[in-house]
Amino acid sequence: MSAYDELMAFTRETEALASVAGRTGWDQETMMPAGAAEMRGEEMAALESVLHARRGDPRIGGWLDAAEAPDEVGAAQLRLIRRSHARATKVPARLAVELARVTSVAQGEWAAARRGEDWAGFAPRLAQIVALKQEEGAALAAGGDAYDALLQDYEPGTTAAEIATLFDALRPPLVDLRARILDSAATAPKLSGEFDEAAQMALSEKLAAAFGYDFTRGRIDKAVHPFSSGSGTDVRITTRTDPADPFNCFYSTIHEVGHATYEQKVDPAYLLTPLGAGASMGVHESQSRIYENQLGRSRAFTTWLFHRMQESFGDLRIGGPEEFFAAVNRVHSGFIRTEADEVHYNLHVMLRFDLERALIAGDLAVADLPGAWNDRFAADFGVAVDKPSNGVLQDVHWSVGLFGYFPTYALGNVYAGCLHQALRRDIPDLDAQMEEGDLSAALDWLARNLQRHGSRFEPRDTIARACGTEPGAEPLLAYLEEKFAAIYAL
Amino acid sequence: MSAYDELMAFTRETEALASVAGRTGWDQETMMPAGAAEMRGEEMAALESVLHARRGDPRIGGWLDAAEAPDEVGAAQLRLIRRSHARATKVPARLAVELARVTSVAQGEWAAARRGEDWAGFAPRLAQIVALKQEEGAALAAGGDAYDALLQDYEPGTTAAEIATLFDALRPPLVDLRARILDSAATAPKLSGEFDEAAQMALSEKLAAAFGYDFTRGRIDKAVHPFSSGSGTDVRITTRTDPADPFNCFYSTIHEVGHATYEQKVDPAYLLTPLGAGASMGVHESQSRIYENQLGRSRAFTTWLFHRMQESFGDLRIGGPEEFFAAVNRVHSGFIRTEADEVHYNLHVMLRFDLERALIAGDLAVADLPGAWNDRFAADFGVAVDKPSNGVLQDVHWSVGLFGYFPTYALGNVYAGCLHQALRRDIPDLDAQMEEGDLSAALDWLARNLQRHGSRFEPRDTIARACGTEPGAEPLLAYLEEKFAAIYAL
Repeated sequence: MSAYDELMAFTRETEALASVAGRTGWDQETMMPAGAAEMRGEEMAALESVLHARRGDPRIGGWLDAAEAPDEVGAAQLRLIRRSHARATKVPARLAVELARVTSVAQGEWAAARRGEDWAGFAPRLAQIVALKQEEGAALAAGGDAYDALLQDYEPGTTAAEIATLFDALRPPLVDLRARILDSAATAPKLSGEFDEAAQMALSEKLAAAFGYDFTRGRIDKAVHPFSSGSGTDVRITTRTDPADPFNCFYSTIHEVGHATYEQKVDPAYLLTPLGAGASMGVHESQSRIYENQLGRSRAFTTWLFHRMQESFGDLRIGGPEEFFAAVNRVHSGFIRTEADEVHYNLHVMLRFDLERALIAGDLAVADLPGAWNDRFAADFGVAVDKPSNGVLQDVHWSVGLFGYFPTYALGNVYAGCLHQALRRDIPDLDAQMEEGDLSAALDWLARNLQRHGSRFEPRDTIARACGTEPGAEPLLAYLEEKFAAIYAL
Repeated sequence: MSAYDELMAFTRETEALASVAGRTGWDQETMMPAGAAEMRGEEMAALESVLHARRGDPRIGGWLDAAEAPDEVGAAQLRLIRRSHARATKVPARLAVELARVTSVAQGEWAAARRGEDWAGFAPRLAQIVALKQEEGAALAAGGDAYDALLQDYEPGTTAAEIATLFDALRPPLVDLRARILDSAATAPKLSGEFDEAAQMALSEKLAAAFGYDFTRGRIDKAVHPFSSGSGTDVRITTRTDPADPFNCFYSTIHEVGHATYEQKVDPAYLLTPLGAGASMGVHESQSRIYENQLGRSRAFTTWLFHRMQESFGDLRIGGPEEFFAAVNRVHSGFIRTEADEVHYNLHVMLRFDLERALIAGDLAVADLPGAWNDRFAADFGVAVDKPSNGVLQDVHWSVGLFGYFPTYALGNVYAGCLHQALRRDIPDLDAQMEEGDLSAALDWLARNLQRHGSRFEPRDTIARACGTEPGAEPLLAYLEEKFAAIYAL
């Protein structure tokens, strides 16, 4: 075997183990009995110990030195293996394993603290995790910025400064749009009533199918927090139901299907290789958000959905498709990021980005976090946070060590704006298709121009290649302005 | 750290990985989408590659040489680690990994072949697995008997010759009892009607609770084939429902709860160590069978169950508890081992034992297996097998490489007979308790005398210590004779 082949065989086995670790995480959030939390922490630590040792295996250095890539795809494989190897050799095994153990256990503790509104009980654990992530960031940065180093796990090639620049460009127009909407005399109707949860799940499955989800290579379960997990031929999603809010179910499902079909549509030749997954969290989010928003919350698609909802639930007490479109896109100042409308969403992300940078930099202590959160929230959203579950305890991310993840949500929105512009350019009759519930042209476009490549190209390149232009904030801002000007008669 | 502590820390991590591998198997049978079978094979192979390398890690030899056990428990740990290390060093990694991959994929293929009655389509895969197991057996036996070597994975310390001797003692009285029952003028009533499947599951959960299953450290799902999986704080079971046959659901549940509570009640100090699981498959089966049969199918417990079933399903069209007891224990000559009554069950096992010994010895070719099965079945059961799913394709075991597993089922029945005798001796008013649905004294007895020890003692010792005598076939035979003589007026 050539050095390249040996390296790829070794890497393939590592990727198979990583796939198991990912599914063990899925199991923890969907199937695991509560009493197994501590043992699961040991299991996650053991898996991380193996994965960390394999990714940092000294033989990889030799193989990388000797390997000749057979083609461009092979060169991309080597690039990603080199990156993963460099990362693993920088982080001490003890730290990697400790992080895996602690964040596994912390997940259940966070859920309990959130249910019990018990910030004080959870704060010491979060402080421990921040300290571990500071240590990891410092090890990875090797003298550079720790937060930038952590960011590479989610959005390779990006820096906090670049993101801050992007957010500086986004923020004023969003704040302005928000103010004009809230000042507007026009109001969007709000869906009300009780909606059978089994019927929500049934329609949810229809939506998943419409958005191209392959059920033979995935499954849908209910969970408190919708997420997508896995790659290749086993990509699972979760969704949730709320009798009073079927949109939560439907758009959670569509969002997760965006993530999941991205994974499902990666070139099968990349299965169990470093190329065999989405290019970054930002690119991933571009898929989930374009599915959910630019497509799923479009006037055309909501027209189709309006009729499907009437079939499932009878009279919705909504005047017609136009009113339904406004109800789906109703702008309101809520506490919860995952329930936020498109205007508020990025403001949630910016809040978290600034706070987590300060936490990792050591400029903000965990003890001071709720105060900082609540002050910022009052300033940005004009509402006082009433309880931890509506504030600092609402998201799981920090509890499981995901520092540097949040900004990729806004990046995904920006990328989705760019992709949507290109998609509209290439498929002029998209609206006519979506009114019939036919998303195939749009889905094919995304699969062909972006999803099939997996991690072959760097994240920003992945977007630029699909769009034919460098990504920027303008398409997203123009899309939001046009959409909400129409709904709110701005 | 001492050599002992280093070894135990390393072993603990290996056990955590083995726990993940076990749960990945559970997932494959309960949750995995069909399209993921091939990728799952890669994952199982990668896990086996890691586990095999760890169990055969050369450092273990050094640690074992230097380790001093701190106490008797420590000595038992070292004994099991030594055994596992010796096993791993005998089997080539290539073979171990290939077996993991092939048997993972074969599981789905077997299920499809069984559904489609496609013996011919599955036979080549089975032939491949037999060849791999022959190779593994030869590697393990190092000149000795390959089947005996394979048997050690399920029942350490036992030989095929010992089992054959036991079976020779069991067979004539069972054949005689069977003949007298079938010749008897008395008949047992058969439950008939339609039984709501959700209500079956609800009563099934009550039964699981009555038999001591801890739901905070486990879960129940529906699956085509009931099984128990896991150890420590995460022990899951599956059961099944059939509208026409609620007993199948209830006794599958009780059986699997027997396996699961054994794991749940092992001393928590043994968690993620070699002692932290059941002593052998035979001892495991003794728990599942005593729960299912000697307790669950007793006159006393079925009296309680009769009333619970009336509450759940209304009129059962069964005259009363005595008639219900007879219906639960109705003897009939069926094709399916897992649905067999206590009289026929061991005859099923003996058939498989003889055939699998011949397969591994090379005395029987896979191509000739259906003929051999059907001839033997006609001789033993007086019925001609009508289709592969009622014959050679009915059980998953051989398809996933479990050669040497079947005889432990009958061994478990024998052990259950011994334990039941001792239990009755120590708890004279057991029937009065069970009539009230109170199994606590019996469950406590089993937990205290057997389950808590996990793998601390060798399988046969585990039973002997609990019973206070060496195990033999007599108690089982006496129990069966007494029970069925009463039901069938022999």
